[in-house]
Amino acid sequence: MSNFASDNVTGISPAIMAALEQANSGSEMPYGEDTVTRRLTAQVSELFERDCAVFPVATGSAANSLALASLVPRYGAVYCHREAHINVDECGGPEFFTGGAKLVVLDGPAAKIDAAAVEAAIDGAGDVHRVQPAAISITQASELGAVYRPDEVAALAAVAQRHGLAFHMDGARFANALASLGCRPAEITWRAGIDVLTLGATKNGAMAAEAVIFFSPDKAGDFEYLRKRGGHLFSKMRFVSAQLEAYLTEDHWLDNARHANAQAARLAEGLGALPGIRLQAPVQANELFLALPDPVIKGLEARGFEFYSWGASGAQQIRLVAAFNTRPEDVEAFIAAAAELTGATAARESA
Amino acid sequence: MSNFASDNVTGISPAIMAALEQANSGSEMPYGEDTVTRRLTAQVSELFERDCAVFPVATGSAANSLALASLVPRYGAVYCHREAHINVDECGGPEFFTGGAKLVVLDGPAAKIDAAAVEAAIDGAGDVHRVQPAAISITQASELGAVYRPDEVAALAAVAQRHGLAFHMDGARFANALASLGCRPAEITWRAGIDVLTLGATKNGAMAAEAVIFFSPDKAGDFEYLRKRGGHLFSKMRFVSAQLEAYLTEDHWLDNARHANAQAARLAEGLGALPGIRLQAPVQANELFLALPDPVIKGLEARGFEFYSWGASGAQQIRLVAAFNTRPEDVEAFIAAAAELTGATAARESA
Amino acid sequence: MSNFASDNVTGISPAIMAALEQANSGSEMPYGEDTVTRRLTAQVSELFERDCAVFPVATGSAANSLALASLVPRYGAVYCHREAHINVDECGGPEFFTGGAKLVVLDGPAAKIDAAAVEAAIDGAGDVHRVQPAAISITQASELGAVYRPDEVAALAAVAQRHGLAFHMDGARFANALASLGCRPAEITWRAGIDVLTLGATKNGAMAAEAVIFFSPDKAGDFEYLRKRGGHLFSKMRFVSAQLEAYLTEDHWLDNARHANAQAARLAEGLGALPGIRLQAPVQANELFLALPDPVIKGLEARGFEFYSWGASGAQQIRLVAAFNTRPEDVEAFIAAAAELTGATAARESA
Amino acid sequence: MSNFASDNVTGISPAIMAALEQANSGSEMPYGEDTVTRRLTAQVSELFERDCAVFPVATGSAANSLALASLVPRYGAVYCHREAHINVDECGGPEFFTGGAKLVVLDGPAAKIDAAAVEAAIDGAGDVHRVQPAAISITQASELGAVYRPDEVAALAAVAQRHGLAFHMDGARFANALASLGCRPAEITWRAGIDVLTLGATKNGAMAAEAVIFFSPDKAGDFEYLRKRGGHLFSKMRFVSAQLEAYLTEDHWLDNARHANAQAARLAEGLGALPGIRLQAPVQANELFLALPDPVIKGLEARGFEFYSWGASGAQQIRLVAAFNTRPEDVEAFIAAAAELTGATAARESA
Repeated sequence: MSNFASDNVTGISPAIMAALEQANSGSEMPYGEDTVTRRLTAQVSELFERDCAVFPVATGSAANSLALASLVPRYGAVYCHREAHINVDECGGPEFFTGGAKLVVLDGPAAKIDAAAVEAAIDGAGDVHRVQPAAISITQASELGAVYRPDEVAALAAVAQRHGLAFHMDGARFANALASLGCRPAEITWRAGIDVLTLGATKNGAMAAEAVIFFSPDKAGDFEYLRKRGGHLFSKMRFVSAQLEAYLTEDHWLDNARHANAQAARLAEGLGALPGIRLQAPVQANELFLALPDPVIKGLEARGFEFYSWGASGAQQIRLVAAFNTRPEDVEAFIAAAAELTGATAARESA
Repeated sequence: MSNFASDNVTGISPAIMAALEQANSGSEMPYGEDTVTRRLTAQVSELFERDCAVFPVATGSAANSLALASLVPRYGAVYCHREAHINVDECGGPEFFTGGAKLVVLDGPAAKIDAAAVEAAIDGAGDVHRVQPAAISITQASELGAVYRPDEVAALAAVAQRHGLAFHMDGARFANALASLGCRPAEITWRAGIDVLTLGATKNGAMAAEAVIFFSPDKAGDFEYLRKRGGHLFSKMRFVSAQLEAYLTEDHWLDNARHANAQAARLAEGLGALPGIRLQAPVQANELFLALPDPVIKGLEARGFEFYSWGASGAQQIRLVAAFNTRPEDVEAFIAAAAELTGATAARESA
Repeated sequence: MSNFASDNVTGISPAIMAALEQANSGSEMPYGEDTVTRRLTAQVSELFERDCAVFPVATGSAANSLALASLVPRYGAVYCHREAHINVDECGGPEFFTGGAKLVVLDGPAAKIDAAAVEAAIDGAGDVHRVQPAAISITQASELGAVYRPDEVAALAAVAQRHGLAFHMDGARFANALASLGCRPAEITWRAGIDVLTLGATKNGAMAAEAVIFFSPDKAGDFEYLRKRGGHLFSKMRFVSAQLEAYLTEDHWLDNARHANAQAARLAEGLGALPGIRLQAPVQANELFLALPDPVIKGLEARGFEFYSWGASGAQQIRLVAAFNTRPEDVEAFIAAAAELTGATAARESA
Repeated sequence: MSNFASDNVTGISPAIMAALEQANSGSEMPYGEDTVTRRLTAQVSELFERDCAVFPVATGSAANSLALASLVPRYGAVYCHREAHINVDECGGPEFFTGGAKLVVLDGPAAKIDAAAVEAAIDGAGDVHRVQPAAISITQASELGAVYRPDEVAALAAVAQRHGLAFHMDGARFANALASLGCRPAEITWRAGIDVLTLGATKNGAMAAEAVIFFSPDKAGDFEYLRKRGGHLFSKMRFVSAQLEAYLTEDHWLDNARHANAQAARLAEGLGALPGIRLQAPVQANELFLALPDPVIKGLEARGFEFYSWGASGAQQIRLVAAFNTRPEDVEAFIAAAAELTGATAARESA
């Protein structure tokens, strides 16, 4: 198992698979009227220390698009990073679900946006010719594996509040960020000003499960209708909810995330010390972005390691992702291979 | 287990649960690039005796809406029965995914439409003021549990061909219909003129799995992009495909359907003979629609049987659905209870 | 000028053309910030005896679609007559602008719906699987030339209020209806429970001008943004508003409508008395729907009269529309020709 | 008439007003089946030296949005300048009409994009996660008053062709650009690779008239249906077409544009020579963008000159627009006032 391509190449963690089996007994009313889903809402509310409205769905793209569709008008502007998953990896899903809202893309290091950039971009409120400022969306952890701290989120929330914007967090790798921060879930979400969190589980051990969490249930508005007409209301909902329940039980989500983060940290430590390899962003969660010589990339691929190249073609950058089940021995093997290859490369270059 | 409310109150059949477990080993490339999904396409093509493009999704609403969205222009008209699931049970999903196409609803006994009704409704082709005739959609088995025969489908296909319409079959209960007809899958689909089938598995033993099958792969067009932006492309696709693979392997789908159909038939036989109970439609698959005296309904509920009332309020109609795991003893218990209650009712009325 | 095909085959009435010329002097701020548009809002509010929000647009389809888009959620149901212009003559415009809402079509004589039919059709409120009851839309005068009386409108409004629905009136021929009723504008609109009126002028003497009138300005909500992104906010708005201003000044709209109605009444009187000609609906505004023998239709066409055939092909029905500038001598000529042709036909048939 | 705010603060040119009056005689079949509209298509085809499909609409936003909607799939990417009218001034109209396509915004001097920038931005073709490269859109003249030369357009067209993209030109001020270039209409459009031109007339003397011109009529596809359901098909179309016909007759469009351009050039010449005033972009059509001291701006406003401030607040930039009827004496008065004010300002600063 030397696949570092993504955390979604993994299967299902044993605890979550066991939960699926356990949920498979007897009849349950469909479409979320089951006992598991009811328990899940209570569980999320307790974990986040606040009454929440919780909507399980099965993909991150659905979670994000539906969340935004319930938050912004069709002529709204959503401020996000240029690299945001909602902007580059969902084939226009947010535009589709919102009825044509506009993502206003911002730049910023490590795929994070900051309050000043958003503040500078907000424009046109009340001007009928312009899309109307409507929401901020950030990704936690970011698309380059960096983590927003509570104070950074709060600074963005202050901008949101000043302009009457909703504040959305794409938490596809929320557990990795949370494990990295070591704070309580509430601190990095609603206490810092987040209105809606899309909490991912799929990349961190689940089969296909994400929860859209509204921290003010009365603002969930018409989410249920949007979810249904989007084809995202599951008849046998208990099996989606069961994954989320197991995920959040007894720190399973954090245990999985801590493991993945630790493997990424070890990769960063081992690879960052090698000649000719440069980290492109701080490694704060479970992803690494590296620039390294082309022969090294080719050599790693030749030895059977799997990973994605990244950025513009020819940039000689790669992404490595550690997952809940990444084996330390595979990490060490990767570092050793890179060491050997960079040594060879360095030797050849200095020859 | 005396729940006759729907076939989606059930859990997962053992064979499909086993397939989920088996699929949970090792890494697999995401988004359908996995080995299971590849096998599935070959399997479907063999079963249907024709090269097919196969797109797994997880809900029937998604399957139907995406299929229609790829078949009709945003200003298209889709001819379907007034009771069609796409018209009354998807909260406007088809309108959403198609970008505002119009469902032109037709009447017909047993929730089936016929060629003459569609022919009479088609109008306005080439007239810029009118939505443009674009597709016919039928449900197999129908929303009242009736089954379209191949000749009925072929007659509708002739209308479709005459007017250049696409022909879609909502096969949420396709296996039940197929088991009822006893024909080959090809006979009731593409050989009869169907262009696209949404093949349901969820109601018949799967957890959450449907396949959109294009019988002419070159007409699948932009389905993949529509699926992705609709949030219906699963990263860990192997787990959706594995359900479908097990479903279609060694007649599992047909075995499940035959069992459910047999329970429905026994219910029809047993209940149809009771005084004051009238079947509202022929029982050809796994659903029954019954009119019966209100005290009988109340009595059955009081004894713990679960089912939905149906039709306009006060109509004293109910729906019973048998599933792959409906127990014969529960069927007999239901009939016995109804017999007792109708006897009591009849006695009281004749007193 | 023997063209009875539609009231939109006409040109511009002299008073409105004069207004266009008069508006063409000096600079005016664009997009509705001009002096004419400001005057128009005051004028409409006075005429309707209530503060109104007034939004000029240039086509009836735009007016209707935008009004509905501001009134209903994308998963809303709009109850209307099967023959409603929004259902059959706007190529799906309402579905497009609303983001996929559903028109639930009802039947009723003279293309009018009544309270009982709407009440019976309303269903599914609060059920996430169903589109949600959202609005009633009626056409005044109806698509068959009949007129809703205030008590009929009020009865529908009571249904709307009971179910929390918005109530929209498509007034493409509002002036004709108003002239027919002889009541005050307020009586047949907001006093009877109408929330939003799309007031047509184009068919009754304007070039291209309709006003969307919200009787509760605070409910106009996001209409301005929807109008702009729909491409219906005119930069040189003064020229749209000037048409409407002239239209509503010194009873010009009513004078035009009374003339058209009178010509239609004369046609009905003259033609209704002829053998073999039957009126299909009461003639209460400026349209007639007639069944008459095919040789008579052919004969009228051969003499150069223009009109549309109507209904299903071969039904031998035609529509005649009188306009603000229909000449009495053309009306008499038409009657005379029909008399001659029906006489000939009758003679031939009795021969 | 000292209003330099925009070319849409003007009224209607005498020739076009005369054409409206002339069109106002007799009956004409509606919805573009009239004689004027037929003549217009022939006229445009002759002017552009190629058979064209010509669709009159009444606003530029409608023209652009409908053109794009007919050119790109709902998951398409449209490459345009960050300042493009379609991106900043249509309240999301293109996203609405296309069903959620994405505008990918590029930078470039004078609000022009170049081939290299587009080439670098194109990405993700065939990748289901990404919006699909679909069209390039440029504005002629640009939003900063600069003009694309034929070779620049051709270079962009080469990129379009290489990637299979459609090429759209927003010609809201096409006549101004054409007059500036002094070339034939064909040279700067289809001969340079443009597929669809939205030809504006409103800003240059018309009341409300734009033409969407497809240079390959067979690619106009479903434009007619999109126009109708967008509410942009006019019943009394002759009055839109008559404006365009007069506009294009006997060089009226070019005469108007030359006059406006000349006034802008004079303003540039006169103002550019003053101390403390800097032109922000080359003045190649009828717009000027100036940075100038705040007291000068305030002084000009105090003297009754009207214009818009531009760019970020406090940037002390203004836009001046000359129109077909801008009077030379007003231009001279503006320059004289600016001269006086800058002298005063300069004097105060040097004091």
